[in-house]
Amino acid sequence: MEKYYIGVDIGGTSAKIGLFSTEKDDIVKTWSVPTLKSSDEMIIINSITESIKEQCAAYSIEVNELVGIGIGVPGPVTEEGLVLKCANLGWDVVDLRGIVSNLTGVQNVCVANDANVAALGEVWRGSGKEYGSIVMVTLGTGVGGGIIINERIHTGYAGAAGEIGHLTVNADETEHCGCGARGCLEQYASATGVVRLAKQLFPEKYGKELTAKDIFDEAKAGDEKALVIVDEFARYLGIALSGVAKVVAPQAFVIGGGVAAAGNIIIDTVKKYYDEYSLFALKNLPIVLASLGNSAGMYGSVRMVKR
Amino acid sequence: MEKYYIGVDIGGTSAKIGLFSTEKDDIVKTWSVPTLKSSDEMIIINSITESIKEQCAAYSIEVNELVGIGIGVPGPVTEEGLVLKCANLGWDVVDLRGIVSNLTGVQNVCVANDANVAALGEVWRGSGKEYGSIVMVTLGTGVGGGIIINERIHTGYAGAAGEIGHLTVNADETEHCGCGARGCLEQYASATGVVRLAKQLFPEKYGKELTAKDIFDEAKAGDEKALVIVDEFARYLGIALSGVAKVVAPQAFVIGGGVAAAGNIIIDTVKKYYDEYSLFALKNLPIVLASLGNSAGMYGSVRMVKR
Repeated sequence: MEKYYIGVDIGGTSAKIGLFSTEKDDIVKTWSVPTLKSSDEMIIINSITESIKEQCAAYSIEVNELVGIGIGVPGPVTEEGLVLKCANLGWDVVDLRGIVSNLTGVQNVCVANDANVAALGEVWRGSGKEYGSIVMVTLGTGVGGGIIINERIHTGYAGAAGEIGHLTVNADETEHCGCGARGCLEQYASATGVVRLAKQLFPEKYGKELTAKDIFDEAKAGDEKALVIVDEFARYLGIALSGVAKVVAPQAFVIGGGVAAAGNIIIDTVKKYYDEYSLFALKNLPIVLASLGNSAGMYGSVRMVKR
Repeated sequence: MEKYYIGVDIGGTSAKIGLFSTEKDDIVKTWSVPTLKSSDEMIIINSITESIKEQCAAYSIEVNELVGIGIGVPGPVTEEGLVLKCANLGWDVVDLRGIVSNLTGVQNVCVANDANVAALGEVWRGSGKEYGSIVMVTLGTGVGGGIIINERIHTGYAGAAGEIGHLTVNADETEHCGCGARGCLEQYASATGVVRLAKQLFPEKYGKELTAKDIFDEAKAGDEKALVIVDEFARYLGIALSGVAKVVAPQAFVIGGGVAAAGNIIIDTVKKYYDEYSLFALKNLPIVLASLGNSAGMYGSVRMVKR
């Protein structure tokens, strides 16, 4: 019999929602609802659950017949599904699992951090699917990380595992990261980090209006200064990944997020530095680009509740 | 009915072996056999299995009635129990699980890295027993690490998880570590690393004959130079632990090994630096001294096969 699951990926501007059918073995319908930053978490939660009810009605599905609802959230989430003060949404501590379960009548509700569910999505249906244990690094406005061990999210104490963006990669840094420390990976490998590197290294060349994409495009066209910037970006990322490998030893790394859209130029330069800093047994671990794009979170959220 | 398990901790000079009784709920007899470094792994293996047979006979236990045999090995071990080129013993790749099972008739044989089984031992019966997920760091001749997640060893690809001694903590280091890289934690936080720090920082004070214990003893007595060395040692260890926490977010850290015999002076100074480099959610994680000493490996080896 056909069964249905819902995967939700809550972001800072919208929540992407997908309806998964076991008969089609895929997401058969996606939609989104806007997310308003507010200390009243019920604004977002109600609009998500109401939209799920509407869309299910269109498919003649009773909401309480859904087998499960998985949800990714842009903040720390405990193993029990408690969202801890999600600054991106303006929330305090929220029992999202309990609230959604009450509103929908669905018992099987799972909640996890968005970087973690994206990693799980890539392992299930994306470029990590040959592996059971991966670390995914998301290079966007910030740098996020998700750790999957034997096809399960590793949440860690206080939901804080996989905070790869805040690994110290440059002890000599003088500027502060948003987290308060100095020399975090995020200061070099995020979209803003790449632009910052460009302005630091070549202030005469790079003015105010600039994106990470501009720099990667120039590098691909052979511009020497842009290549220096990409090399520096990749060195910091390589140092961080080699450190992560020494701790968890995944089978592969998956690189996603907006910055990763630059493609193979990233993989090639990161691999060089990763190998340079790695232990012998961990050299040549596969480092691959994510393949699901913005859908990774929806797939991972479905995977959490579909076991 | 009383049941028996065997826990073995193979080291570079001897293998410590313990007989665990379910009735006493503890190890009731321990003994050891010398370990000769040789490319013929059967020399060590036969002497271990023969001694197990002898000791069991003294207890009127048939060896094939043992419920399980757990073994810790000083080298990398895969999740399947394959020992990968153990340099400390002179071995090539060895199917230790299969060989011991054949020699004893015991089906339930598990093999893991010695730092990993020590960590599991501390979680089961030592100072980690309030926690299900810990990272143990062993400060000895080298620096080893063991990662326990939900009371299970996290082995990782090629058995390489928990190689905390080779995390880069000082990118400016000019001397090489045994692994070939520069600036590894082991260069500062092992017994030899502490002595090296002393000679580098105060060459006029510290001559050739010196141990890590001498320096910690002086520091405890208030010697200012020794306190500077301990502070530097603790800073590197704090940087490494804060990095490990950002990746796996354990519930606690357990510090063991010969250097940790110095006691609370280590914990107090490491905590200061750990908190300085940590993310907010991970500050104040418990950092405690190991409590089982040389018996941790035997307990952890028993725990592997006793579920």
